Amino acid sequence: MRNVAILGVGMTDFGRLEDDTLMDILSSASIHAIDDAGIDPKLIDLVYVANMGGGILNHRTAIASGLVDNIGLIPAAADTIENGPASGGSAIKDGVMAVASGYYDFVLVVGGEKMRDVTGWRATDFVATLTHPDAEYIYGITLPGMAGMFANLYMEKYGYTRRHLAEVAIKNHKNALMNPYAHVQMDIAMKGIIDSPDAVVNNSPLAEPLHLFDSCPVSDGGAAIILCPEDRVKEFNKPVICVAGFGQATDTLTLAERDDPTDLKAVTLACEQAYKRAGITAKDIDFAELHDAFTILEIAEAEHAGLYKKGGYKKSIESGDNKITGSLPINPSGGLKSRGHPVGATGVAQAVEVTWQLRGEAGKRQIKNPRTALTVNFGGFGNNVVALVLRREK
Amino acid sequence: MRNVAILGVGMTDFGRLEDDTLMDILSSASIHAIDDAGIDPKLIDLVYVANMGGGILNHRTAIASGLVDNIGLIPAAADTIENGPASGGSAIKDGVMAVASGYYDFVLVVGGEKMRDVTGWRATDFVATLTHPDAEYIYGITLPGMAGMFANLYMEKYGYTRRHLAEVAIKNHKNALMNPYAHVQMDIAMKGIIDSPDAVVNNSPLAEPLHLFDSCPVSDGGAAIILCPEDRVKEFNKPVICVAGFGQATDTLTLAERDDPTDLKAVTLACEQAYKRAGITAKDIDFAELHDAFTILEIAEAEHAGLYKKGGYKKSIESGDNKITGSLPINPSGGLKSRGHPVGATGVAQAVEVTWQLRGEAGKRQIKNPRTALTVNFGGFGNNVVALVLRREK
Repeated sequence: MRNVAILGVGMTDFGRLEDDTLMDILSSASIHAIDDAGIDPKLIDLVYVANMGGGILNHRTAIASGLVDNIGLIPAAADTIENGPASGGSAIKDGVMAVASGYYDFVLVVGGEKMRDVTGWRATDFVATLTHPDAEYIYGITLPGMAGMFANLYMEKYGYTRRHLAEVAIKNHKNALMNPYAHVQMDIAMKGIIDSPDAVVNNSPLAEPLHLFDSCPVSDGGAAIILCPEDRVKEFNKPVICVAGFGQATDTLTLAERDDPTDLKAVTLACEQAYKRAGITAKDIDFAELHDAFTILEIAEAEHAGLYKKGGYKKSIESGDNKITGSLPINPSGGLKSRGHPVGATGVAQAVEVTWQLRGEAGKRQIKNPRTALTVNFGGFGNNVVALVLRREK
Repeated sequence: MRNVAILGVGMTDFGRLEDDTLMDILSSASIHAIDDAGIDPKLIDLVYVANMGGGILNHRTAIASGLVDNIGLIPAAADTIENGPASGGSAIKDGVMAVASGYYDFVLVVGGEKMRDVTGWRATDFVATLTHPDAEYIYGITLPGMAGMFANLYMEKYGYTRRHLAEVAIKNHKNALMNPYAHVQMDIAMKGIIDSPDAVVNNSPLAEPLHLFDSCPVSDGGAAIILCPEDRVKEFNKPVICVAGFGQATDTLTLAERDDPTDLKAVTLACEQAYKRAGITAKDIDFAELHDAFTILEIAEAEHAGLYKKGGYKKSIESGDNKITGSLPINPSGGLKSRGHPVGATGVAQAVEVTWQLRGEAGKRQIKNPRTALTVNFGGFGNNVVALVLRREK
């Protein structure tokens, strides 16, 4: 089994990309990653596209085949990988195995979504197609609704308040102001709001106890990485950033069937697998990109990943340890909350941010000299989770 | 890199499965394969679902996550793989790499489609979503239309007649009469038609020169295999059927952009890759399952796979060498033409048929003592093709 490195990374702006099709978005992110790697595109022998909504949102299939044509990668093999909002993490895992197995040497993994081709309730309905069709979807449950129910239980059990949620939102919005790719970085307007925790607490309700600022936006965007064997990175004169470990685990499709709906078992299992494969423990993690589609999820994932005990993240929120300047920064990119959440892109975008941070290329939001990082890509409502441990090797 | 074997196989009936949802179909095929392998489901650590139309046809996403819950495989990792009509082949390739890499030991690959949730033109429109959106789809091109244009060029260049196409249809319908899983096996009605080549030649036109009997039906159905390391097959007392090689290659999305639209380069490249990895040449193939969504494709693929020279398959048609009793049987299952074509299932169903044949379990349609077989799973209109070489090792 070969060790696998991230040779190049790139992404598009996240936000409302009115002039771009899904294919434009995937192509642009891919080209940025190819340029960053400094690789001859002819060397790329496999492409994985992470995408969830090509069919429902864009009425397209087989987009991986279109992409290799559009950006000149024929005759590379190409498939689309879908695992709901964790499609990006799954595609990276599959790319890692393709290189580790020895079958392929240079794998482009690109995630993208064009969600704003539909408007209003249709975007929420689209995401809800990942719920149980007979036990959830037909009753009108949506992901914000699930997150609200989950938040009620979690906050009561572990002593969180709306103010804790607001502080997560404020931190991530502040981080996003330093991320030029972020969707929500409306400097003046956002600064006026996020400088006032009360304003964030009191904005419009979404699904109680969650309010508008507890939720990620609906975004267009793409992100891409190039994977290769660790021992070939030196040919390209790039820093050696390895996928030291990955983990993936599933749980019941419905929240209702879990013994304890506040226990995100798949997050814990996926992280434990990733740590074990990387030969580390949670204590070795220097920073993390977590899947904060809702503020409550940053809290719950930080705790289920073993970075904190259950209920323990509130101390980090209160002390500011989760800030870029803290001892364990969480979501320096701004997270899904503020960078945005084009669902197929998200898991890849997490790896892009981590790579930039590990290389020391994160600009104003650079964390001081990190070596090992965790990403958690949360599919469904925690029913299919992918975790990655990325590490700077030299 | 570990050698990878097919431990178990199973499939549902193909046809109009009115009482089954997509999840029912995937679950049923999976359970048949698990039963055939004789494996404790807890050993399955990864699931790949091959599906193309969950979003557009069934308004569902993240079906892999639902499947592991539905059939009791939690916490196994699970993703959906989509590569148009070659989704099944792609998912097998990805499963092979997962086992070869050493990351996973027992991988369930299940393909399925519930196409008849939509009716009439919507099924054809769905498949057309794999075409180029600006250069093809908006002008109303469909896959039958493409196949018709291709057939005109190919038949003129290589001297094929409508009678040759009809003979392919007749052969595959006769084979399907011996396949209890096949969609089109209406014994009496079919026998009346397929005993008369003139009746097949003269049935209703579809896209000239192709007529109704040159096309596969629109089918529901599922097929599944269990992959494992070759050296673990003996624990289960099963024959050792290995994925000796796979290949995958892409070509231009549009037919119009190819230097020679009759040259299916991706078929040739994918087969050459698969032969090379298996350490064989086309001469070593004992029989093949080809992607005859249209009769012309069986002809063109047999020739592009190197089983015959260009134009050479007509001798096999005329002599009957491509029949089950011939020296190089093609589509003993009945092919897509008669077994049916639930798109996500097709590539997996090809591997299921080949496994049955290599084990000697193919009943009335059993080929005499085959050892090495080829499958060709044709995505798009030949723009993304997956080939597999399967071999009985002992």
